[in-house]
Amino acid sequence: VRALREGPGCTLEVIDQTKLPFALEWKTLRTAEETAVAIKTMVIRGAPLIGVAGAYGLALGLRGGELAVHYELLKATRPTAVNLAWALDRVRAAVEPLPAAQRFERAWKEAGAIAAAESDACKRIGQAGLPFFAKAKNVLTHCNAGWLATGDWGTALAPLYAAKESGVPLHVWVDETRPRNQGTLTAWELGQGGVPHTLIADNAGGLLMQRGQVDACIVGADRIAANGDVCNKVGTYLKALAAHDNHVPFYVAAPVSTIDVSLASGADIPIEERGGDEVRAWNGVALVPPEVKVANPAFDVTPAKYVTALITERGVVPATREGIARLFT
Amino acid sequence: VRALREGPGCTLEVIDQTKLPFALEWKTLRTAEETAVAIKTMVIRGAPLIGVAGAYGLALGLRGGELAVHYELLKATRPTAVNLAWALDRVRAAVEPLPAAQRFERAWKEAGAIAAAESDACKRIGQAGLPFFAKAKNVLTHCNAGWLATGDWGTALAPLYAAKESGVPLHVWVDETRPRNQGTLTAWELGQGGVPHTLIADNAGGLLMQRGQVDACIVGADRIAANGDVCNKVGTYLKALAAHDNHVPFYVAAPVSTIDVSLASGADIPIEERGGDEVRAWNGVALVPPEVKVANPAFDVTPAKYVTALITERGVVPATREGIARLFT
Repeated sequence: VRALREGPGCTLEVIDQTKLPFALEWKTLRTAEETAVAIKTMVIRGAPLIGVAGAYGLALGLRGGELAVHYELLKATRPTAVNLAWALDRVRAAVEPLPAAQRFERAWKEAGAIAAAESDACKRIGQAGLPFFAKAKNVLTHCNAGWLATGDWGTALAPLYAAKESGVPLHVWVDETRPRNQGTLTAWELGQGGVPHTLIADNAGGLLMQRGQVDACIVGADRIAANGDVCNKVGTYLKALAAHDNHVPFYVAAPVSTIDVSLASGADIPIEERGGDEVRAWNGVALVPPEVKVANPAFDVTPAKYVTALITERGVVPATREGIARLFT
Repeated sequence: VRALREGPGCTLEVIDQTKLPFALEWKTLRTAEETAVAIKTMVIRGAPLIGVAGAYGLALGLRGGELAVHYELLKATRPTAVNLAWALDRVRAAVEPLPAAQRFERAWKEAGAIAAAESDACKRIGQAGLPFFAKAKNVLTHCNAGWLATGDWGTALAPLYAAKESGVPLHVWVDETRPRNQGTLTAWELGQGGVPHTLIADNAGGLLMQRGQVDACIVGADRIAANGDVCNKVGTYLKALAAHDNHVPFYVAAPVSTIDVSLASGADIPIEERGGDEVRAWNGVALVPPEVKVANPAFDVTPAKYVTALITERGVVPATREGIARLFT
């Protein structure tokens, strides 16, 4: 995992993503509380990465702390991405049978295993998705689902990096992704990887598809329901509609840890409502006067019928109940 | 027209819309060249308003200047909204038969007549559209098509102001409208008019419609083709798709000067590509490093099939060839 690493003395070092794209700064997290704040304030973000960070955070909380308290603290930071709960559950299950004195070491090891597994999953996602991009010239993505948000490679960006490595001359349209502007992270990441790209306002993608300037869309996911409905960064749904209207394939790339088979459909996924300041201001600069009322839902749900395929580390399946069931057998 | 007025000594005074919502400043324009710069840099904006401003600008250019030169100068400022060409044509037709010495006075009078007619059209649009909002609780709008963009009342906002006057307890979801953030103008305008509203990221409207939190959408237009395709601020198409997908009516309000019957369909409408700095920075604050490549198409085309009705000063018609023909007979 490139956006997060184990530091000296069992600390957690993470890239401070609120400082990108202008500065690459690392931040050291020493406690579960510090990790919770980093997740909540989006110093670290991206569904798979907050799972990994949560796992490490829970381990940090076990250096003398209560399991249940830190489990709840970390789980409450962000409600939508299921990877966080999934990773916390996995660490809890690993340490629960053990006496308190052995828990920290076991949890730290489990977090490392989760990190390694998610990185490996991303690499497999890249290989699984590669065939869909072998002939694509222009691909559109929303938000950031690259290595900053996951392990190495990323989820949505993994097949694009794989295509780049295979010599496919891809160009990526990058949605700005208001209000947090995670598209600027994607632009930075693609720039680091030498992948040609163009940043656009979130409003522009529909026009580009109408003009035939988009060969495929690919996004990550924060939670996928058992029927294939995909919850992802708000605005994803609008791009899926435009892709459908213009016969552009719309792919969702995610590790199976993102799939929540306990939910029948996307309507059951909790949508995080974030603070209004994310809409009112940008990097401390006011966009509107403080008295303007704002709403800031952070995710939306793309109905399964608009998803061409799910690309996972266990293979590519249709976004249907049957397709998803196949991943778990 | 509230966003523009005749100043002393036949000058043109306009609200500097680049200063809103933080400051209400008027700017005086004395020449066609100054008017052209004000239109190009969006000191004045909105399809009907740039038509009115263009008409006055051409008049200013006739105080000693060449008709053809100033006509072309003003026409070239912005290519998409047809109202500009329409108003310039109207002034040119009025003054062409006259000797040079009489042209300025005639043109100034014609510009005033256009301003009055567009204001009157807005008021009629408000009345024509009112019945559709008599029971609406939550209405979504994109960009700014209020009195800042037109004459009094506005186009898209005119039925909402009329509803407010009739005692309908409306609430308006205001799309931020990146990259120029004209939603902040709409929020300011609605605030001045006492209409409850909430500013949202452009990405959020789809989710709100999925949740049943939008009863109707209404937008203005920059050009409407003979078949009912609607060209409007980029991103409009995405909201129309979401409205269609969620059975939410999607209205387009515009004066008939916005309809270009010479164009068979929206595919023929020129889409303005604006400077990349509008995406790269906000009010001089960089959002991405200057080396990031950006694209900035300013409009898109909503196919007629996604438009519930066109609301004009001559009545409400379906967005079809037959409906539009009815407006001109």
